[in-house]
Amino acid sequence: MLLVLTPTITPAERSAVDEAIRGAGCTIAETHTRRGMLLVVDGDLDRVRQVPLAVFPGVRKVIGLSKPYALSSLEHQAEQTVVAVGNTRVGGGSFAVMAGPCAIEDHATLLAIATQVRDAGGNLLRGGAYKPRTSPYSFRGLGLDGLLMLRDVGLEVGLPVVSEITDPRHIEACISNLDMLQIGTRNMSNFDLLVEVGKSGHPVLLKRGRSATIADWLNAAEYILAQGNPNVVLCERGIRGFDTATRNTLDLAAVPAVRAQSHLPIIVDPSHATGRSSFVAPLARAACAAGADGAMIEVHTDPTRARSDAEQAMLPVDFRDLLDDLRLIHKVCHRAVDA
Amino acid sequence: MLLVLTPTITPAERSAVDEAIRGAGCTIAETHTRRGMLLVVDGDLDRVRQVPLAVFPGVRKVIGLSKPYALSSLEHQAEQTVVAVGNTRVGGGSFAVMAGPCAIEDHATLLAIATQVRDAGGNLLRGGAYKPRTSPYSFRGLGLDGLLMLRDVGLEVGLPVVSEITDPRHIEACISNLDMLQIGTRNMSNFDLLVEVGKSGHPVLLKRGRSATIADWLNAAEYILAQGNPNVVLCERGIRGFDTATRNTLDLAAVPAVRAQSHLPIIVDPSHATGRSSFVAPLARAACAAGADGAMIEVHTDPTRARSDAEQAMLPVDFRDLLDDLRLIHKVCHRAVDA
Amino acid sequence: MLLVLTPTITPAERSAVDEAIRGAGCTIAETHTRRGMLLVVDGDLDRVRQVPLAVFPGVRKVIGLSKPYALSSLEHQAEQTVVAVGNTRVGGGSFAVMAGPCAIEDHATLLAIATQVRDAGGNLLRGGAYKPRTSPYSFRGLGLDGLLMLRDVGLEVGLPVVSEITDPRHIEACISNLDMLQIGTRNMSNFDLLVEVGKSGHPVLLKRGRSATIADWLNAAEYILAQGNPNVVLCERGIRGFDTATRNTLDLAAVPAVRAQSHLPIIVDPSHATGRSSFVAPLARAACAAGADGAMIEVHTDPTRARSDAEQAMLPVDFRDLLDDLRLIHKVCHRAVDA
Amino acid sequence: MLLVLTPTITPAERSAVDEAIRGAGCTIAETHTRRGMLLVVDGDLDRVRQVPLAVFPGVRKVIGLSKPYALSSLEHQAEQTVVAVGNTRVGGGSFAVMAGPCAIEDHATLLAIATQVRDAGGNLLRGGAYKPRTSPYSFRGLGLDGLLMLRDVGLEVGLPVVSEITDPRHIEACISNLDMLQIGTRNMSNFDLLVEVGKSGHPVLLKRGRSATIADWLNAAEYILAQGNPNVVLCERGIRGFDTATRNTLDLAAVPAVRAQSHLPIIVDPSHATGRSSFVAPLARAACAAGADGAMIEVHTDPTRARSDAEQAMLPVDFRDLLDDLRLIHKVCHRAVDA
Repeated sequence: MLLVLTPTITPAERSAVDEAIRGAGCTIAETHTRRGMLLVVDGDLDRVRQVPLAVFPGVRKVIGLSKPYALSSLEHQAEQTVVAVGNTRVGGGSFAVMAGPCAIEDHATLLAIATQVRDAGGNLLRGGAYKPRTSPYSFRGLGLDGLLMLRDVGLEVGLPVVSEITDPRHIEACISNLDMLQIGTRNMSNFDLLVEVGKSGHPVLLKRGRSATIADWLNAAEYILAQGNPNVVLCERGIRGFDTATRNTLDLAAVPAVRAQSHLPIIVDPSHATGRSSFVAPLARAACAAGADGAMIEVHTDPTRARSDAEQAMLPVDFRDLLDDLRLIHKVCHRAVDA
Repeated sequence: MLLVLTPTITPAERSAVDEAIRGAGCTIAETHTRRGMLLVVDGDLDRVRQVPLAVFPGVRKVIGLSKPYALSSLEHQAEQTVVAVGNTRVGGGSFAVMAGPCAIEDHATLLAIATQVRDAGGNLLRGGAYKPRTSPYSFRGLGLDGLLMLRDVGLEVGLPVVSEITDPRHIEACISNLDMLQIGTRNMSNFDLLVEVGKSGHPVLLKRGRSATIADWLNAAEYILAQGNPNVVLCERGIRGFDTATRNTLDLAAVPAVRAQSHLPIIVDPSHATGRSSFVAPLARAACAAGADGAMIEVHTDPTRARSDAEQAMLPVDFRDLLDDLRLIHKVCHRAVDA
Repeated sequence: MLLVLTPTITPAERSAVDEAIRGAGCTIAETHTRRGMLLVVDGDLDRVRQVPLAVFPGVRKVIGLSKPYALSSLEHQAEQTVVAVGNTRVGGGSFAVMAGPCAIEDHATLLAIATQVRDAGGNLLRGGAYKPRTSPYSFRGLGLDGLLMLRDVGLEVGLPVVSEITDPRHIEACISNLDMLQIGTRNMSNFDLLVEVGKSGHPVLLKRGRSATIADWLNAAEYILAQGNPNVVLCERGIRGFDTATRNTLDLAAVPAVRAQSHLPIIVDPSHATGRSSFVAPLARAACAAGADGAMIEVHTDPTRARSDAEQAMLPVDFRDLLDDLRLIHKVCHRAVDA
Repeated sequence: MLLVLTPTITPAERSAVDEAIRGAGCTIAETHTRRGMLLVVDGDLDRVRQVPLAVFPGVRKVIGLSKPYALSSLEHQAEQTVVAVGNTRVGGGSFAVMAGPCAIEDHATLLAIATQVRDAGGNLLRGGAYKPRTSPYSFRGLGLDGLLMLRDVGLEVGLPVVSEITDPRHIEACISNLDMLQIGTRNMSNFDLLVEVGKSGHPVLLKRGRSATIADWLNAAEYILAQGNPNVVLCERGIRGFDTATRNTLDLAAVPAVRAQSHLPIIVDPSHATGRSSFVAPLARAACAAGADGAMIEVHTDPTRARSDAEQAMLPVDFRDLLDDLRLIHKVCHRAVDA
């Protein structure tokens, strides 16, 4: 950590600064420059970071040189994390496809969709039981009944299942019925919920908040990891942008940006990112080409009957074609990564 | 509701559209234009909105002419809501100031701050007990002990108290100890929590989410109102912007924009919006001049000892001067509103 | 066009509205709904759009049902535009790679880079002569000398050349020396400059403005097309976002979004979008997989000597590997498009 | 300037770094920390900033400790700049109101508006002659005829006049007819135009670009100042945001943020920021309360006949009331600033 002092700092102010730093168990080295004095602070930075040095009189600026201790960082773990979800592995060079309807509606529809997802080569079945909806008057999901339906259909077709948890009071029900717990974009900073899924040890799919920087997102992952649960998969699903041509702005640069600083796997959800079914295939292909570890895609056998997000649902026939493309692109990129 | 049909719609597709609309209990009137057929849909629009007409073959576009039924709207209630919080009233022409430390740290510090807040003319005491923090390694508040401390100090100085609730499992503790429940920016879309504070009937301060449009925000308020709790005060606290010169981007146009469509009171938090203590007074004055119903301001007797957000805390002496200005500006603007 | 009237509109107000619409040569059809009267306006909408009907007393809302007449739209031209730039064609199923240094520095360096670009399979040579720089104290390019250098090197290696024009007074010099004129992100809304390059008839590469919606961008293209110049290629290069992890936010969904409404070719610039050389290859691959018509990539033989944007320059060896990948991915996606 | 080296830097890499720094005339001081070596670079930083040290092998990060030399900074000039525009002064404690129609339409309308602006207490007359419009098919202004009309009406009513310049080829015509040259939001980064108005020495109103940070904006001002023209007034007019409830997002924190680092006066344009006439008065009052040096406001005697931006035009009667409020608020805030 580096402190830039003002040229007018008084001896008393300087003493207060030194005392606060030394009180946090750190050492100080001075460097003079034309523009004023710098203090290089070394030692247990986690402690000194709790001291608000920036508001001490005589301090012009505090500059962090290293990141806070982070379990998600490449400094902590160099090799990529691989998260096992049922019989599927996310991370480590494969491309995992999670697919299914936005909301679970009834057993027959879910089974029809799940069968198509499996036959096309999908790896996990997704479906919403607790649905956060912008308006309280929209369909908000079947709740526990939906979870049970998802579990049953997952077993029937032989796919592990993932669904969103929105309330810490649902943790038992979710753990018993799901292979992977999804934290949705609206709850990325619901820290009480993050702690709860952290304690569970269960695989977690952590979607990026709409206004979250990559640093915010990795800090959210840190809440889970800090509870001793290493099974975190990140999911880029679009951030808030100014153009209404798409529902959100897919930030595909998040894939290499996460790679550059974290060992956690990252997948991409082009369905929520764009909100339009005809944009999903091109952006799923792009996600694969950018090096993502998988994709989450909404599929519905009859979008005109979908009770949620009908405009972004792919038809099974298009989904099958897309998965063929993804296999080919993944081969090219894997070659690119190996080279 | 208006449907724009494609010129190439087939009779079968048209029948499917008509059937879906009539099945939802609505009527259809046709209008021809040079560019194609329009259908004007009338009747119980809340039901027909659940049908995904936009994905029906032959439909080019669906245009909503009226908003979903909204308890927060001026159509529902023309006169402004006034929320009573202890001995203070928010809305109805007054300017309510909620102030105190970011986090509750200890009884003596809180009492010292609260005394200054009251003596300067503040109306409510704020203080965080459950602190959502970006990093899991930051100070996260005293929890229940903090709530009790806040209640005690509030009684001591004679100010009602407000603090953030972050978990539905804390609802009992929060209701027993607080006069007003704050929903923070990170939980604006935590709908399970919104339902819980809605059921409580307690006054709620609903902060705007960092990436929330005004429509999203009013929909969040709707979750609370729909539970039969009319005591909602909105709080603009800055949205995510691209400029790092301030912590967030204070969207002061939200004040007239909310006024133009809702009867709910709206206050402004310039402390979190800017993150810098020297920017707080100018923007608090601006909020008052823009017609806000109040402000929430962080005050600390010694920012160098603050355990959270030290850089945005005002000193009591500056806070007192600010409140003098606000009284004068409020008088000018009230005159403006009355005119 | 549709007008929603207020229920309280007076006969005099209604007459004023009708008169204004009929005065613009349009017809009016009335439709009654429970919530009030609608007017469907038909006829020469381009004229009636110049009348500010939204501010007429008694009008609640004006809703456009069709877009302003647009030369860039698929309604105007269904088949994709193909722009010939020297011996290269952009659009029509190929993938054109424009590459070279950010700024032209000297003949020897430019020639070395150009040779590598050509040998790797690049199709156009790029290089900045007039460099818009955020600070007036940064290197701002060699100007006319740079243009001449670029033309000479282009001829030497057999590649057409593209460079940015920033001032309408440079139009002659740019036309004489360049195969394609680039409008940079900062000048996307410099309409006088757009008109000038429109009049020239020369191929134009129109970069997206940092805060431009896709609609804004197509309107900028319209300025060029409206001068009778059909040779416009769009270039997505990242928009302003809130995350500083990358220089800009690459909006790759712009590729399918432009496709869905325009016949103009669109390429992607991952170098400026990300600002980091290690992110360029993954996002160039992603652009190709998303269906873009090409990419613009910064290449430098020695980034430590680059006078502009050194951090985003690729080395020739990495560029060569990337082009190999792009050829393979393009084959997969072309197959996808043909299917 | 500070360089953080990687722990694995080789002696040869280190030599290259040292050589580049010393070659730019700077000195190096080393500091060791637990996490690696720091180099403190001192001397002529403007030169060493041109060297892309961040891409040198062995360098992990480059951290700037001081800003590039900036004529706009408080370090360069502590007292606020006062810009004289005809008989009006902007900056120095007054509150200057620039008002008039969006576009100049005809002499009679302009005169009627100008008379009302002057009688209400406005200080400058604004009116657009060269109008940048999103669509090429919108009314684009009267050009030179408009300028002449504006000059004549300005003389008639006794107000100095300001209008936008969009093309360097118009500089002579603009200088001869205007008291102040406006650079619009779309041209904030049109550096050739900035240099031209810089050379002119004429007062300049520099609007903030829609996607410009405050740092970008001050750099644009620097282009003008660096030509020897100190007469620059900044104008905050809203930045691009994600909420369509207003046309732009007014960033009122820009007022204290500019104050904290620059001596240039700053005014606010609530008309373009919001795009809705009923939001203009509250935000003009807010701008004054936030400490701005003035406001730019669109006024029209008959918005239903306005040829541009009719929805944001204030009526003269409302404008007069607003100016009464502004005088009162200004008095309160001036008192606040003096205290």
